[in-house]
Amino acid sequence: MDTASSAPAPRPQLVATLVCADAPGIVHAVTGAVVALGGNITGSRQFTSAETGRFSMRLQVDVPASREELERELAPVIERFGITATVDTVGRPMRTLILASTAKHCVNDLLFHVESGHLSLEVPLILANHDDNARLAEFYGVPFEHRPITGPADKAAFENRVRQVVTEHDIELVVLARYMQVLSPELCEELSGRCINIHHSFLPGFKGANPYRQAHRRGVKQIGATAHFVTTDLDEGPIIEQNVMRVDHTRTPQELMTIGQDTESRTLRQAIALFSEHRVLLDGSRTVVFR
Amino acid sequence: MDTASSAPAPRPQLVATLVCADAPGIVHAVTGAVVALGGNITGSRQFTSAETGRFSMRLQVDVPASREELERELAPVIERFGITATVDTVGRPMRTLILASTAKHCVNDLLFHVESGHLSLEVPLILANHDDNARLAEFYGVPFEHRPITGPADKAAFENRVRQVVTEHDIELVVLARYMQVLSPELCEELSGRCINIHHSFLPGFKGANPYRQAHRRGVKQIGATAHFVTTDLDEGPIIEQNVMRVDHTRTPQELMTIGQDTESRTLRQAIALFSEHRVLLDGSRTVVFR
Amino acid sequence: MDTASSAPAPRPQLVATLVCADAPGIVHAVTGAVVALGGNITGSRQFTSAETGRFSMRLQVDVPASREELERELAPVIERFGITATVDTVGRPMRTLILASTAKHCVNDLLFHVESGHLSLEVPLILANHDDNARLAEFYGVPFEHRPITGPADKAAFENRVRQVVTEHDIELVVLARYMQVLSPELCEELSGRCINIHHSFLPGFKGANPYRQAHRRGVKQIGATAHFVTTDLDEGPIIEQNVMRVDHTRTPQELMTIGQDTESRTLRQAIALFSEHRVLLDGSRTVVFR
Amino acid sequence: MDTASSAPAPRPQLVATLVCADAPGIVHAVTGAVVALGGNITGSRQFTSAETGRFSMRLQVDVPASREELERELAPVIERFGITATVDTVGRPMRTLILASTAKHCVNDLLFHVESGHLSLEVPLILANHDDNARLAEFYGVPFEHRPITGPADKAAFENRVRQVVTEHDIELVVLARYMQVLSPELCEELSGRCINIHHSFLPGFKGANPYRQAHRRGVKQIGATAHFVTTDLDEGPIIEQNVMRVDHTRTPQELMTIGQDTESRTLRQAIALFSEHRVLLDGSRTVVFR
Repeated sequence: MDTASSAPAPRPQLVATLVCADAPGIVHAVTGAVVALGGNITGSRQFTSAETGRFSMRLQVDVPASREELERELAPVIERFGITATVDTVGRPMRTLILASTAKHCVNDLLFHVESGHLSLEVPLILANHDDNARLAEFYGVPFEHRPITGPADKAAFENRVRQVVTEHDIELVVLARYMQVLSPELCEELSGRCINIHHSFLPGFKGANPYRQAHRRGVKQIGATAHFVTTDLDEGPIIEQNVMRVDHTRTPQELMTIGQDTESRTLRQAIALFSEHRVLLDGSRTVVFR
Repeated sequence: MDTASSAPAPRPQLVATLVCADAPGIVHAVTGAVVALGGNITGSRQFTSAETGRFSMRLQVDVPASREELERELAPVIERFGITATVDTVGRPMRTLILASTAKHCVNDLLFHVESGHLSLEVPLILANHDDNARLAEFYGVPFEHRPITGPADKAAFENRVRQVVTEHDIELVVLARYMQVLSPELCEELSGRCINIHHSFLPGFKGANPYRQAHRRGVKQIGATAHFVTTDLDEGPIIEQNVMRVDHTRTPQELMTIGQDTESRTLRQAIALFSEHRVLLDGSRTVVFR
Repeated sequence: MDTASSAPAPRPQLVATLVCADAPGIVHAVTGAVVALGGNITGSRQFTSAETGRFSMRLQVDVPASREELERELAPVIERFGITATVDTVGRPMRTLILASTAKHCVNDLLFHVESGHLSLEVPLILANHDDNARLAEFYGVPFEHRPITGPADKAAFENRVRQVVTEHDIELVVLARYMQVLSPELCEELSGRCINIHHSFLPGFKGANPYRQAHRRGVKQIGATAHFVTTDLDEGPIIEQNVMRVDHTRTPQELMTIGQDTESRTLRQAIALFSEHRVLLDGSRTVVFR
Repeated sequence: MDTASSAPAPRPQLVATLVCADAPGIVHAVTGAVVALGGNITGSRQFTSAETGRFSMRLQVDVPASREELERELAPVIERFGITATVDTVGRPMRTLILASTAKHCVNDLLFHVESGHLSLEVPLILANHDDNARLAEFYGVPFEHRPITGPADKAAFENRVRQVVTEHDIELVVLARYMQVLSPELCEELSGRCINIHHSFLPGFKGANPYRQAHRRGVKQIGATAHFVTTDLDEGPIIEQNVMRVDHTRTPQELMTIGQDTESRTLRQAIALFSEHRVLLDGSRTVVFR
């Protein structure tokens, strides 16, 4: 067995994200706050978008200070440059609501990796319009709630329950783990920037229903999956992660669907891991991803 | 949801594998047997090895005949060319014994895909020298037996239990799902050609212990996993499947180990799927894989 | 240096492709013809399409007979099953006309691999509406003809010249190596099944003009290229090969274009290699590719 | 055609690399120098190695100052932290000596991309122990010198010529583009950190001679190539880039060699592009690569 253990860190690091209109001096000012607290920068990435002129930064620091102290120290810089900022503790589990339907592969993959400690999420609830994932949720000790949707009223009630859970548990991320209902425009708006869906095609190819059937008909040589933020434009939200896998003419639509599930699970998990580590920032209709 | 269902086949197809010294006329003779039974060939692959001179073939047929009838019809051809042959029903679950230790990712992946119907295995037992996988086995309704190994006597007893299960359940495949003990040369011999291991490196790089630590020290830019037949030469058996994934300098040995698990699970599963569908044939120290 | 030379084959092998409505007995009958000539099958692949019911086969044989003798021997089988067949000598250079514009990467890649002996093509002419590739053609000793297109009349004349070359040189394959003109519907029809284009996107995503700019705007995480048969439906012809490569938010449209050229060259070359080895068969709007 | 042109930058940016023992305050001090000159940071990456404790940084800046001015401004910071630093103009062609033998694929790939403007190199000479690349060099207008090596004296003379060219042209990078001679330990030392080789295997698998033959014998399912710094330990130098491609049992050693050339050319080119953009830093026996 690999015994590649690393010594436990003496204290958790902090991570900050900063987004604003680009201007000279931001990095120097931000790092100045870290120096003032006697901290050390252990990782940093930045990007300035030529399209939007927006500056995005992710900064990870080892600092003898609390999250609140770093926020206080950064406050003047944030004000000076008009920065939208977040400060968090590295590794803090992100409060996540999972929405599901019948498919189990994504839910299984996520819960397994949460339990293994590879994915730092706290999942107070899986809310589903089918009960297929109930046993799996129970196995991993995650509360599961089944609310069938058979008509518009059910759907509205389901969405109200989503809102309620989001508020009650201060949810930071809503994951559509092959949840097979289209969210209402209102809910899309409310969850803007914190709701991630997995689409079972290499977008923008094969939007809408039955993408594997479409892929088969078109005879593509690779199938894919796309994790993206949910917006009111169906399957048009900012893309976070995409993967493909090679297929050939022998595969039926049913087989494409089966073998594509691997790519779906992995792509959704990767997107969630990136998001939960504050590595995904929005830049208009695109994402900035600091790996 | 994709509703890409295909109409159920009226009868299961048959699959035959044939290996012998190459000679003209084999394919014609073999297909003659299929024609004689009024069957139709739905897929066939063949390969003649320049190194060993061996002819390998996989033939899938839709035929109004039983497995035994096809065997009877093929018997004269088999005798004439000195063929080593197998005939099976397509989709019949392969009787598989899984050996495990502490790691759960491969066991979880295999059982999930068996339950989902993506992997056609019948698993009468998971035998393990640690009990970490007990709950998972129970969840999927697979018998689990925990036999700790703390010394040579335990190990011998463990291996005897393997032999017993193999005999009792007429086991066709033994899977080392990150089983962290080296099999004795005797057991390797006995299970020759039907025991598959997953090694957590891109063999032949990083044989032996702690491959991720070795990979980190060497600074490779991609890490991999290798599914191979077990032989008495440790980590030297015929390779069935290999995959890699990109990493960079920022990853610790511990992180390599964590992110490599995905590649391990997938690679092992792919190898088992290929083997259970009679797509993997031995050609000396190499494999012929008919995808 | 690798000195992995293989002994020269005593005689060239033959390759046959066969397409017809599926029926029992085809393979047996076809292989019977090979046996009758005292030949040995060195490779064979077949596929029956569930959508179209068409049987496709590629057969490679080592046979003490000429191409004409094998054709004669196969004639009754071909008639009996209504087969569309081709018989060729393995390795015979395929007569290929290349159409080009300003971009040089595909032309350079193709000519280099033809000269290296990796691609078995005979290129009697490169016909281009710009002269950028003239020096490259000269370097590789390939005739080059520059015919500017500045209006509809030029375009018609250009296409007539294509027709003339196709006839004169008995052209088997026309390659659009980033030829930036849309072929007329008439020419598409005339070259049906023997004209291959490279499109600089992962079709069906980003059809039409400026795919890299579209890809940038959409923020995809992988860009791709698609080699496909040319049909009257622009960018909708049967796909032969596709590849992708990972990109991130830092890339400008210009950089996507530059780094995508590698994928374009490679994908076009792979498609041409497969076609020239008679490994690509049409099955309605899809391709059957026997690797 | 894609017309994805970006407006020309008003002035070239500067790029700095900085390596030293890690300490708090480095980033703040470095960015302070940029701010003092009225510059803006357009990209930055940093990494602290847990193994060596070394801090590595790459900084790209848009600054109204010359390379010398930025060096002067950084001087106190460099002294204070004991930094090994380089400052360069972004896009300045790197002075590169190419060593070659018989193989043409890497040389062709490099020269094509230099001419296309995708690779920013200035190549004053290709020095080769065979004349196979002479025509190619002439085509691209690059001086070519053929010095056959038939014994130890020739080899010593060849290496002395390398030293002479390196001095005369102030060479920053020596590329072994499938140069099939082992450099003497002395020359390895002299060129330490600025000599890149392409090895035709996925190191550390298949070191030494005939890697494709070894790969074939071992029956691997993917073959690869590795670009690495040359050190006195043959095939053991720090790895810069690696790629693999899938193969199967049907491939002969000769075919592996042929299809592997693509991966070799691409991997070498990627490594050189990274190096020439000051994105590759040494960290003991490993590399830090800031993409």
